[in-house]
Amino acid sequence: MSEAGFEITERSRVMRQPIRGAYDEASVFAILDATLIAHVGYVIDGQPFVTPTAFWRDGRKLYWHGAVAARMLNSLADGAPACVTVSLLDGLVLAPSGFKHSINYRSVMAFGRARLISDPEAKRVALDRFIERLYPGRAATLRPATDLELAKTAVIEMRIEEAAAKVRNDGVMAIPEDIGWPAWAGVLPIETRIGRPTADVRLGAVAMGLATPAPYAEGDGLDARLAEAMALEIDRAIESV
Amino acid sequence: MSEAGFEITERSRVMRQPIRGAYDEASVFAILDATLIAHVGYVIDGQPFVTPTAFWRDGRKLYWHGAVAARMLNSLADGAPACVTVSLLDGLVLAPSGFKHSINYRSVMAFGRARLISDPEAKRVALDRFIERLYPGRAATLRPATDLELAKTAVIEMRIEEAAAKVRNDGVMAIPEDIGWPAWAGVLPIETRIGRPTADVRLGAVAMGLATPAPYAEGDGLDARLAEAMALEIDRAIESV
Repeated sequence: MSEAGFEITERSRVMRQPIRGAYDEASVFAILDATLIAHVGYVIDGQPFVTPTAFWRDGRKLYWHGAVAARMLNSLADGAPACVTVSLLDGLVLAPSGFKHSINYRSVMAFGRARLISDPEAKRVALDRFIERLYPGRAATLRPATDLELAKTAVIEMRIEEAAAKVRNDGVMAIPEDIGWPAWAGVLPIETRIGRPTADVRLGAVAMGLATPAPYAEGDGLDARLAEAMALEIDRAIESV
Repeated sequence: MSEAGFEITERSRVMRQPIRGAYDEASVFAILDATLIAHVGYVIDGQPFVTPTAFWRDGRKLYWHGAVAARMLNSLADGAPACVTVSLLDGLVLAPSGFKHSINYRSVMAFGRARLISDPEAKRVALDRFIERLYPGRAATLRPATDLELAKTAVIEMRIEEAAAKVRNDGVMAIPEDIGWPAWAGVLPIETRIGRPTADVRLGAVAMGLATPAPYAEGDGLDARLAEAMALEIDRAIESV
């Protein structure tokens, strides 16, 4: 899988600092799998919209869901072109000159056409996959969705036609003019972590003494845990074949 | 300022769960000021693009920059419509049913038309403002940008015509069917924090014993510190009038 790549096209080519771009599945999937929120771009009457939404991946397909009435879902249901972008902020890079300030990040832009999944059973499978991707093994422990709940939920699928990853993971670019200039220079790393879980008393989680779902524990890095959950889910899917 | 609001229009109205939407400046600015990365949506030949980029705010105007050659900047320079979206993931919400799983978040969608700032002096002022917004008091300590550096940098300005904030900050929605179901339910908070700063040895930050710029320290919440830096910068701007 790591050898496979996405075709590089005019719309997916990294224009600015192309050295930071990558188009192979391993690079693209690693970033998608370390994130939960995508920013979905779509066009209505020439106006761009960017909607943040939780998403999940299954092979080269991306999925997200929403209420049936939502603007985005209605617009995308007919196969309109979409751009799904994820990004992770990994650090602030401070240089002795304003020009060389930067950020460390990981990002993916994925292009494709979105379609609405209408079959209730396909919807159920896709939504279970979302739960499994986040919390491996959890879907089977939950109260199953009712037909009404499924009917209220729209599920969108987008096969990735092209995708580009872009990463900066580096220190300050030291240029001669900046060396020795008396301003602090370096990197402030940014870390996104799980805080202290709060169990819901009304629903019974506390009374039943249930543990928070693996692999999430207080203090863990969210990106690493999301990637780990995704890897576990892929392993389970392979085993069940 | 907190009384002022953005006009609610068809493109900005929160369609899904409108109760979570807000259109006042205080709500919109609080979220913009707690974030650094925006996802900028624009359209080229009917194709939507969503580019993640660092941004800053000055009143009702948003700014971002890039290399002059970048695809986005060329597309937006002529006043094309844009959508600038920011989001913060604040928590994972786990329910006893898949249907009631959710996330806690803060987000803003802002609409406007982008224009390129071409005057070098206006560019310099805008870029200094970006440094000041992130690191109050720092711009005056840096090596000034050369004319060539300014020429290489494109600065984009977008006056916000309409904007909507959307927030979920809540526990699990407890519905009767889910109460007592034996699955862990509750909230896993997500926190984005400053890690341990790494000073750049080559550039001299270590040898000079300089401190990391306020208000950033290891362990601090990034959103709170970004908002604090922005408030400090606004205070300084008012004092200097």
